[in-house]
Amino acid sequence: MIYLDNAATTCIIEENASFAAKNAKDFFNPSAAYAQEARNQIENARKTLAEYLGASADEIYFTSCATEANNWAIFSGATKKQKLKAVTSAGEHASVYESFTELSRRGIQTVISPLLSDTRVNADKLIENASCDCGFISLIHVSNETGAINDIGAIFSEIKKRNPNVILHSDGVQAFGKISTQVGGLGADLYVVSGHKIGAPKGIGALYIKKGVQIRPLLFGGEQENKLRAGTENVGGITAFAAAIEAYSRRYRETNFTSLRESFLQILYQADGINLNGSLDNSVCSIFSVSVRGVKAEILQRVLAEKDGVIIGLGSACSKAKRGNRVLEAAGKTKLEAEESIRISFGADTNLEFAKQAAQLIAQRIGALRQNCH
Amino acid sequence: MIYLDNAATTCIIEENASFAAKNAKDFFNPSAAYAQEARNQIENARKTLAEYLGASADEIYFTSCATEANNWAIFSGATKKQKLKAVTSAGEHASVYESFTELSRRGIQTVISPLLSDTRVNADKLIENASCDCGFISLIHVSNETGAINDIGAIFSEIKKRNPNVILHSDGVQAFGKISTQVGGLGADLYVVSGHKIGAPKGIGALYIKKGVQIRPLLFGGEQENKLRAGTENVGGITAFAAAIEAYSRRYRETNFTSLRESFLQILYQADGINLNGSLDNSVCSIFSVSVRGVKAEILQRVLAEKDGVIIGLGSACSKAKRGNRVLEAAGKTKLEAEESIRISFGADTNLEFAKQAAQLIAQRIGALRQNCH
Repeated sequence: MIYLDNAATTCIIEENASFAAKNAKDFFNPSAAYAQEARNQIENARKTLAEYLGASADEIYFTSCATEANNWAIFSGATKKQKLKAVTSAGEHASVYESFTELSRRGIQTVISPLLSDTRVNADKLIENASCDCGFISLIHVSNETGAINDIGAIFSEIKKRNPNVILHSDGVQAFGKISTQVGGLGADLYVVSGHKIGAPKGIGALYIKKGVQIRPLLFGGEQENKLRAGTENVGGITAFAAAIEAYSRRYRETNFTSLRESFLQILYQADGINLNGSLDNSVCSIFSVSVRGVKAEILQRVLAEKDGVIIGLGSACSKAKRGNRVLEAAGKTKLEAEESIRISFGADTNLEFAKQAAQLIAQRIGALRQNCH
Repeated sequence: MIYLDNAATTCIIEENASFAAKNAKDFFNPSAAYAQEARNQIENARKTLAEYLGASADEIYFTSCATEANNWAIFSGATKKQKLKAVTSAGEHASVYESFTELSRRGIQTVISPLLSDTRVNADKLIENASCDCGFISLIHVSNETGAINDIGAIFSEIKKRNPNVILHSDGVQAFGKISTQVGGLGADLYVVSGHKIGAPKGIGALYIKKGVQIRPLLFGGEQENKLRAGTENVGGITAFAAAIEAYSRRYRETNFTSLRESFLQILYQADGINLNGSLDNSVCSIFSVSVRGVKAEILQRVLAEKDGVIIGLGSACSKAKRGNRVLEAAGKTKLEAEESIRISFGADTNLEFAKQAAQLIAQRIGALRQNCH
């Protein structure tokens, strides 16, 4: 093969269809007419993701990340022209929450529905807010802060009965691979998933757009992604995303997270003053949040990382610069409780031994930190 | 290491700081407070790109691709509020051209400046259009269709003299790594580059934003990229981008493209009715376009790929679905000439032997196709 269209792509030229040339070809701009192999890879990945979501392939649009997909859904779904309000919950990820702040700046009326104390949305209030003057709703499927599951299927079905024209969007990033995300059952018009949460590299996400739902592009230019998402396709990210789906969901199913969480908490509770944020019910077992009385989470996190090699979270990395925790506070926690809260999230490879060992180390460190304060 | 913040990232847990764990750690969400290594990688890459552009690191913002960066620059730089017109050229890549179409739909007055016959912008007309009622200008640095170089430095300096408040944007994707893209010399306020054009994987680009230039985000959510570009950073893409910069520009400098183009064209001209689109002057030598009288480019491209293993282009992959060629037609070519035009682009690894061999094969195939038509 002799490649003379490097302006579209990279800079590799090979005489024969050798292995190197084949790889080079795989690397070519997938929307250039000749790049059939790259195109096939993308379309196969699209089918894999579509099947996993119970959608058809032409309802799947790859994006650079879930943040882009959420932004796209929101800024296309809620427009000033409609003169309808946009409704979301106080439990959303920053990519939805901050996009609603921007909607409001753009002159669109927005409503933030309150949470229950377990960090799920107050469904009655949300349904009330979703009356006929509402054009767009965004509700997170699984909380990235506490693992709480919103019953999207029941809530969206109730809303659609009362307001058939509303566009229903859900951020499914933390649900994907963990619980059923069959879009038919959810009744979502728009649904967002992310690759790197299930083991694919960072830089790939997708938006499901239900057939018939009218969405305008967020990025303009080329005719990629059925003319709705311009930009050269991230072929590597897209194929890795598809490969990760089966592997992750299988490993996730095989891991007994109920027992992991139970054992972990049993040990952690040996340190006094540990309170679960949210509830053990209605949540995925692999993400949970606890407050640690008298210990600033930031300090606990740093000490555990540096001294014990144990990595815990403070909540969404996308909100790190803000003190406290918007979602926990919206569920009734005080600012202090929020600042004393840590997030634990198990991976599909976490085993019981590691979980117990980590809980032990965290409990010890909490004790030591409290002693230092006195 | 024991990772218990997998919600932010992937799903790997390791007991010791082994190599595997180190790699896993490198994979963690770079904006989570503990992910110092991933952060360092990103900041080192930012410095590398900044140095290469003659900018400072805090003027570099990574995006998912050049299309996103161009969209970001345009939709932030040209707003309805300003009540000023936005000006571009007829020679832009689709990600700029289609974004201007969208600006116009949004009620912003847009002006498309004409081209010279060599596909460069008509600088006098552009400068005329850039008078004080103009708030934003976008001008491509090197044409992705013909390799023609717009003298951004001279044109932007002239415009700034007459209209100091205008925001000056340039799409530098095809210039980057080939000619000087020192932003100081160009006088650009916003400058866009892409990774995969210089050998990095697809899915990474960057926007240079000159210090003091006020730009709002295109994507809202997390506080990544100095709070201006939300979304988990594509660490792999970013580091690969930086690694590719030095390798590509060095290889590019070492290749004698003037001689490659000369030898290639000398052989190609043996087939009659070959006309260069644009000019040999004021252009990069590694991209050029010719029209082939009496032969549809689409057919020539397919036959060369299938029968000879030679890959040529029809022009930008981002405009493939449209018949003809917008840029060539804007430079005075007929629709037929545009449909008979092929784009040749050498990579930094193209050698003289391959170039000659390819030209020979193309010339033969042109002859054969013409004979078949009679």
